[in-house]
Amino acid sequence: MGKKQKTFRPKARLPRGFKDRLGAELVAEREMLSRISAVYERWGFDPLETPAFEYTDALGKFLPDVDRPNAGVFSVQDDDDQWMSLRYDLTAPLARFVAENYDGLPKPFRRYQAGPVWRNEKPGPGRFRQFTQCDADTVGAPGAEADAEICALFADVIEAAGIDRGDYLVRVSDRRVLDGVLEVNGVSAADQKLAVLRSLDKLDRLGADGVRALLGEGRKDESGDYTEGAKLNEDQIASVLSIFQLPGADGDSRPSEADWLDAWRKAIKGSEVGEQGLASLETLFATLRAMGFADDRICLDGAVVRGLEYYTGSVFEADLLLETIDEKGRPVQIGSVGGGGRYDGLVARFKGTAIPAVGVSIGVSRLIAAQSLKKTGDAVDAMGPVVVLALEPGRMGEYQKMAAELRAAGMRAEVYLGGSSMRAQMKYADKRAAPVAVIEGEDERVKGEITIKDLVRGAALSQEIEDNKEWREAQPAQFAVKRDALVDAVKTTLARHQSGE
Amino acid sequence: MGKKQKTFRPKARLPRGFKDRLGAELVAEREMLSRISAVYERWGFDPLETPAFEYTDALGKFLPDVDRPNAGVFSVQDDDDQWMSLRYDLTAPLARFVAENYDGLPKPFRRYQAGPVWRNEKPGPGRFRQFTQCDADTVGAPGAEADAEICALFADVIEAAGIDRGDYLVRVSDRRVLDGVLEVNGVSAADQKLAVLRSLDKLDRLGADGVRALLGEGRKDESGDYTEGAKLNEDQIASVLSIFQLPGADGDSRPSEADWLDAWRKAIKGSEVGEQGLASLETLFATLRAMGFADDRICLDGAVVRGLEYYTGSVFEADLLLETIDEKGRPVQIGSVGGGGRYDGLVARFKGTAIPAVGVSIGVSRLIAAQSLKKTGDAVDAMGPVVVLALEPGRMGEYQKMAAELRAAGMRAEVYLGGSSMRAQMKYADKRAAPVAVIEGEDERVKGEITIKDLVRGAALSQEIEDNKEWREAQPAQFAVKRDALVDAVKTTLARHQSGE
Repeated sequence: MGKKQKTFRPKARLPRGFKDRLGAELVAEREMLSRISAVYERWGFDPLETPAFEYTDALGKFLPDVDRPNAGVFSVQDDDDQWMSLRYDLTAPLARFVAENYDGLPKPFRRYQAGPVWRNEKPGPGRFRQFTQCDADTVGAPGAEADAEICALFADVIEAAGIDRGDYLVRVSDRRVLDGVLEVNGVSAADQKLAVLRSLDKLDRLGADGVRALLGEGRKDESGDYTEGAKLNEDQIASVLSIFQLPGADGDSRPSEADWLDAWRKAIKGSEVGEQGLASLETLFATLRAMGFADDRICLDGAVVRGLEYYTGSVFEADLLLETIDEKGRPVQIGSVGGGGRYDGLVARFKGTAIPAVGVSIGVSRLIAAQSLKKTGDAVDAMGPVVVLALEPGRMGEYQKMAAELRAAGMRAEVYLGGSSMRAQMKYADKRAAPVAVIEGEDERVKGEITIKDLVRGAALSQEIEDNKEWREAQPAQFAVKRDALVDAVKTTLARHQSGE
Repeated sequence: MGKKQKTFRPKARLPRGFKDRLGAELVAEREMLSRISAVYERWGFDPLETPAFEYTDALGKFLPDVDRPNAGVFSVQDDDDQWMSLRYDLTAPLARFVAENYDGLPKPFRRYQAGPVWRNEKPGPGRFRQFTQCDADTVGAPGAEADAEICALFADVIEAAGIDRGDYLVRVSDRRVLDGVLEVNGVSAADQKLAVLRSLDKLDRLGADGVRALLGEGRKDESGDYTEGAKLNEDQIASVLSIFQLPGADGDSRPSEADWLDAWRKAIKGSEVGEQGLASLETLFATLRAMGFADDRICLDGAVVRGLEYYTGSVFEADLLLETIDEKGRPVQIGSVGGGGRYDGLVARFKGTAIPAVGVSIGVSRLIAAQSLKKTGDAVDAMGPVVVLALEPGRMGEYQKMAAELRAAGMRAEVYLGGSSMRAQMKYADKRAAPVAVIEGEDERVKGEITIKDLVRGAALSQEIEDNKEWREAQPAQFAVKRDALVDAVKTTLARHQSGE
């Protein structure tokens, strides 16, 4: 510790694009993950944890969004010269795990995984380089029944997270419909198809006009950057765009399952892959309806354009329909809380043969945001621990005993550590959001008593009572009890606040 | 996906020194962390999560064990040329967090953190480069009462983990006693003191003779490598070693608190820092005893030599005293399940001024191992989900409805996805450790019935009944119920196995 310290003092700072999380935010995430995990496990999904690192060649280029190049990962070279990268999602490690352990796994293999992923991206406001993902996937089941199960599981998870039925919608489509339309329109060159998929992935962001330009000659964005287009002609563009938005449909009325299927059947007529997509969607929805999941929870919607390049069959995402008001009175849209689809190509990278897989990724932080908004925005701040003041030297053991009694009765409790003034200790209790301070000063000690200071009531009363002197004399929010009544007295006080009185 | 796939097929393999964890192992860790967290929170410690990365200069060289050089971390250079490293423990990030947010924190600041840490070390058997740590620390409280609280918390955590009182012992010492002895013996050069500390840290590994050599001229190990010694003379060596093992004490009788204090008082006579160490230990134990923690849980023991170079005051570790028998009948010693101490220098790197801190790090995997050994080794394998077989095409929705009913009643349930033979599906159920298979074949369907196959009872009976034909005819471990009795029948069957019948 010696030498360097004298010459160099590093600045204490978080690395760019990362954040610390403390207390309530962390507890909320833990509780959310625990609710989600419970649903996954009830559906027969087992937890898996892969390490943070994978060999870079095993991660491949399977980023759902091609705007993030392979350079978007954090990589280190091991001392045997192999490159390893921190995982950027939980799907690539699953593919490696399945390929490595294929023979020993039950098939189909259902697993879930929750944990941090890392993206080596330019940090920005609200854009972090480490965040939590929570995925469930079924590997080895080719039928649309597996897709239906994942969609139903998804709806169950959202409700377990505290979102009411009717406040969300899982929207499902199938990218083979698009493949069919491209086939029918004579678009077959791999490069051109890729350009179309990448353009369409931007439909949410750029809208129909922006994408129309990208599907055609190209598009110049606001910054002046020009993106080369997919070079479709006008008819092809119209045909492609038609499958994402039905003519005649407006914002208010949602086209029915039958509307979509009818329109698509015409658009893909003669294409085998298109027919496969339609048949798969029909089985998917027949299974869902038999399972009791109606279209107030899961519906067909051609406008889903999530990760078209990545998925090979069904694609789906869930949106929150509720609009709430934030603290500043502005309407807040949470939007998508996750999505997924079928990706039959992922494990093939390793195995040579295609292994079917379908999965969902949950937007944990979005669900937490939605959940807290549902609590009407005026949720009581999380209550801190009871604080036992430490007023007399040499009594620390006794203070700790009081705290231990409170803990044994199920309450959070801590002793102020140190010999500061009453004033400093009360300030500390305030910073800790303590609901109650337990005080044994000399006066109390000689009488065998404890003073219970109700800090929640005190804070409320202090807004009513103006006169400082009156306040000091009345001490309306504290009372004395015998030492052996400590636990009951604190418990009663806490119960009053927990019930919201 | 196209081009690269054709020319290059990566091998699916875990990076060296890392592991995947699945199912029961992961659930065990989650439950253990949840129990530990609950204790921490009850004691007023708030959860903190720092990101995986810290700036390398902020991590410094504060590795508890100097055998791990700074090169023992995984580092990447950010695009602004700053070096970042994955955290190798949870203490260095805490120091950075406290230094960065000092003014806004309650003081003392109690926090806990659980999560993975990474070590860029040579992998070896049972030696992983990513593992879970779980720490609690109190920052800003200089008194020995804070040390006492951490020791008591440590004992509480161990008991909450399912280890009985009497089966573990938290042993406490203070490294200022050693400082005092060195001072009295005229060892004051920083380099020489450091060499002494590093030698003593190896006491557990090398024993007294090995360390004696390291304290003196030097030592050649089995591989022939020579380590230069601390160059103490014979008297100095005897004096230093005396404070770790009392003369006359043998393996069976543990020296008392008074024995240690008496011996140390003589050994450090005249050294101020030594006196401070003794006074601190006296306060620490007086506090513990007043809190009701007797020496069957926490005791003074001079033989604690954990991280002497790292800590600045108290040092402690917990050992499991129980000796159990593993599956192969061999005695197993779990040993240390964690430790900690006071480190007042850590935040000073950033702030310039020393900020007192004391903390504990729990060996989560060791605690889990101990807990499972306590279960006498014959714990029933974790039960898998109920498996609903899928025998007839087009009935998937109905099978899923059965699974949904079971889940709604709190049971884990899944449907076999795919159209395989009964035989393949039963094999799958076996691989999933399913306790029950739910079967609706054509026969059952026309009668409005379900067959419940009790796989646990079936496995037990199959060991008794030799005759295959007799087995097939009797089908002793299955029975039919009406469709609407499904949930009750499965529930009753599961309850029988959960109660161990």
